[in-house]
Amino acid sequence: MSLYLRELQMVSGSGKPTISSSTLARRLGLTASQVRKDFAYFGQFGYPGIGYRCDELIQKIRSILGTDRVWPVALIGCGNLGQALLGYRGFGNQGFSVVAAFDKQPNLVGRTFEGLTVRHMDELAETVVASKIELAVLAVPAAAAAEATQEIVAAGISGIMNFAPVTLNLPPSVSQVGVDLAIELEQLAFSVVAKQRARDRSEKG
Amino acid sequence: MSLYLRELQMVSGSGKPTISSSTLARRLGLTASQVRKDFAYFGQFGYPGIGYRCDELIQKIRSILGTDRVWPVALIGCGNLGQALLGYRGFGNQGFSVVAAFDKQPNLVGRTFEGLTVRHMDELAETVVASKIELAVLAVPAAAAAEATQEIVAAGISGIMNFAPVTLNLPPSVSQVGVDLAIELEQLAFSVVAKQRARDRSEKG
Repeated sequence: MSLYLRELQMVSGSGKPTISSSTLARRLGLTASQVRKDFAYFGQFGYPGIGYRCDELIQKIRSILGTDRVWPVALIGCGNLGQALLGYRGFGNQGFSVVAAFDKQPNLVGRTFEGLTVRHMDELAETVVASKIELAVLAVPAAAAAEATQEIVAAGISGIMNFAPVTLNLPPSVSQVGVDLAIELEQLAFSVVAKQRARDRSEKG
Repeated sequence: MSLYLRELQMVSGSGKPTISSSTLARRLGLTASQVRKDFAYFGQFGYPGIGYRCDELIQKIRSILGTDRVWPVALIGCGNLGQALLGYRGFGNQGFSVVAAFDKQPNLVGRTFEGLTVRHMDELAETVVASKIELAVLAVPAAAAAEATQEIVAAGISGIMNFAPVTLNLPPSVSQVGVDLAIELEQLAFSVVAKQRARDRSEKG
């Protein structure tokens, strides 16, 4: 769904109000019948001779994903990765707003990055309540992840996006997604190897 | 395949030499028959009464992925994100070694992060040849991505992992994976919303 959303946003952003299932399928490497099946599943149907209305579909997918509103997000950990994430524009474009940033390091607490002043972790619980924060982005070193997770859960956060290369121990009511950047690099390596193997075969044949 | 690999590495790292298809399936949220089908597809079969040998499977998956050797990687862009990626241990654990880092900013060129001294982009082509670099991690701002991509392609790189929120224009011989961190946050938001909807339903029912 995220991939459809991103593609529809690009089409809509380029000034085209509608798209056919076959064009969308080609852009995403799918078949037109797969696209029609997916959209029918969540109750959207194309208009004969017109295709799909991008804005209508974007609205529908965001409503299913729950991103048809702005989610206030807390950033936990303001080292290099945290600072990079504060500057990452992709979040804001998709309905996520980092409204508060936290750390424990005395050399970081009180500093301002991208307009946000880093608060001490001791202020997490009250900030979560005051700013109605539901999601946290965890960008601390592996060794600090367990303690930070306890504090995040105690503060009442519902979901954690985890960049630390460790498995978090969470109650079932708290959701998590882990970001493993090495998986993306593995896909890239595999794609490079696959092309090399194809070239080797065609040179031999 | 990456998910199987990561899980097998965790099992093996915890001291267990073998795992059954049912245990592996449960840990990954799959069915045992799906696991057996996947492994049979790449020619690996369990041992009756023992299960799968982790090391054997890890070796096989790495050989398919092309990560049974070390890939030298160039980092392009040494701002906050680049510096965070230099400190990201997940790459090294999975067969990727960032051997050189590049930027154009005078305040970054010559500085040392995680033991690597930032070189000027003008040195990219010769470094790629000298260090046999095949992959690049692109961590520059969106506005700098097109120019950097041209230089990366001209230097003879085979694959680019792109963190810039733009589509790269690449010749077909060069592979790319784009990292869209907002997609992970969308999945998290969806999971939180799904749990809330389930709770609302059970309270009503």
